[in-house]
Amino acid sequence: MNLDGVKALTFDVFGTVVDWRSSIAREAEALLAPKGHDLDWPAFAHAWRARYQPAMEQVRSGARPFTKLDVLHRENLEGVLQTFDVAGLSERELDHLNRAWHRLTPWPDVVEGLTRLKAKYVLATHSNGNVALIVNMAKNADLPWDVILGAEVCQAYKPMPEAYRRAADLLGLRPEECMMTAAHNDDLKAAAATGFRTAFVARPGEKGPNQAIDLKAAPGMDIAATSFIDLAKKLGCP
Amino acid sequence: MNLDGVKALTFDVFGTVVDWRSSIAREAEALLAPKGHDLDWPAFAHAWRARYQPAMEQVRSGARPFTKLDVLHRENLEGVLQTFDVAGLSERELDHLNRAWHRLTPWPDVVEGLTRLKAKYVLATHSNGNVALIVNMAKNADLPWDVILGAEVCQAYKPMPEAYRRAADLLGLRPEECMMTAAHNDDLKAAAATGFRTAFVARPGEKGPNQAIDLKAAPGMDIAATSFIDLAKKLGCP
Repeated sequence: MNLDGVKALTFDVFGTVVDWRSSIAREAEALLAPKGHDLDWPAFAHAWRARYQPAMEQVRSGARPFTKLDVLHRENLEGVLQTFDVAGLSERELDHLNRAWHRLTPWPDVVEGLTRLKAKYVLATHSNGNVALIVNMAKNADLPWDVILGAEVCQAYKPMPEAYRRAADLLGLRPEECMMTAAHNDDLKAAAATGFRTAFVARPGEKGPNQAIDLKAAPGMDIAATSFIDLAKKLGCP
Repeated sequence: MNLDGVKALTFDVFGTVVDWRSSIAREAEALLAPKGHDLDWPAFAHAWRARYQPAMEQVRSGARPFTKLDVLHRENLEGVLQTFDVAGLSERELDHLNRAWHRLTPWPDVVEGLTRLKAKYVLATHSNGNVALIVNMAKNADLPWDVILGAEVCQAYKPMPEAYRRAADLLGLRPEECMMTAAHNDDLKAAAATGFRTAFVARPGEKGPNQAIDLKAAPGMDIAATSFIDLAKKLGCP
């Protein structure tokens, strides 16, 4: 595959750029342990995240109008706290914990890799996270995005084809001039189906020690990289 | 006015951040003079720009569905070239000249001022320019935006109130947590009417030597600054 025509990289964020699992586990522990809760913190993070796809599916199916992820995360948080028998948090505490998604920590190769890639490509987020979430995360972690796209701007949650098509249109590019970059093969396959180029970046620790999927690139991906620094090398950004 | 609650600055771009007049005059001359055209280049820039508001008004009034500015600029370019008796440009040349708006030059204080402001505030563009135009301009001129908002993302051209309201909503902020920053009093008044704070930055050269409007802030603006560096000082970003 000739990748010379690629002008923009569009990035999945949760799992690909940031380590949601350990960040959420750490933030939940910081808030709840001093209140006497002794949970399996990574399990709490997993349980919160497990409600993510079903909540978006309500929007994708048309059962619910477009709703930004901050709202879905908050509904999911209230559900998961019930499951873990945590009650009595104030509105301020609930909001603070919900905004832990705005403070997720990037994988260690991310800032250096993006900085190298930025010299040659437009760097766009293309996340299901809402704009404020992604902007606040970028400010907090010094992520040098050129533009924040994604579900709220495109009014469609990935992997709906409209999500990718609208991102390319907003960038003023043809789909084949955009490269979706993600640690998730399903996201990349959906992007490829609309004409995007694809870069898989392995994040074998994303889902914890027993991760069984997305350990390597599915067949047909244009690039398979081990980190953002490796991706930069493979794209000629030393 | 207490401005402690302001968290994001939303910036008008054409005229406030970049000097469209001399940039467009220079680009038109660079393309057309070698072909034997001897136009009043600043007058050409003014004539092209003069078609901007009427074209957007077609969209604001509902006579035309939302259309991105690159498309309106191109239609306006073809009209203004006819007026100036310029014919025979290739599709490639027309596209190159139309994209002069993607390459506009910032005023000399802009990059330093934005860099100072970025340490304290979310910096958002809130322009009638489409996303690709603003992204390409930022790459070309090193403008350190945190997020690209504006007409295409909000699906409404300023000064429609929806344009400002949707920008605040996308930032996850209340209107009074956003400060519209512009060299144009009409833009600021419309923003203020939706609850935004306002900063006027004087660009007395924007419209050329005979500029008669927007030489100073209208009454009621929260801040009146002479440059982005002055704005940074007034907002406590030394």
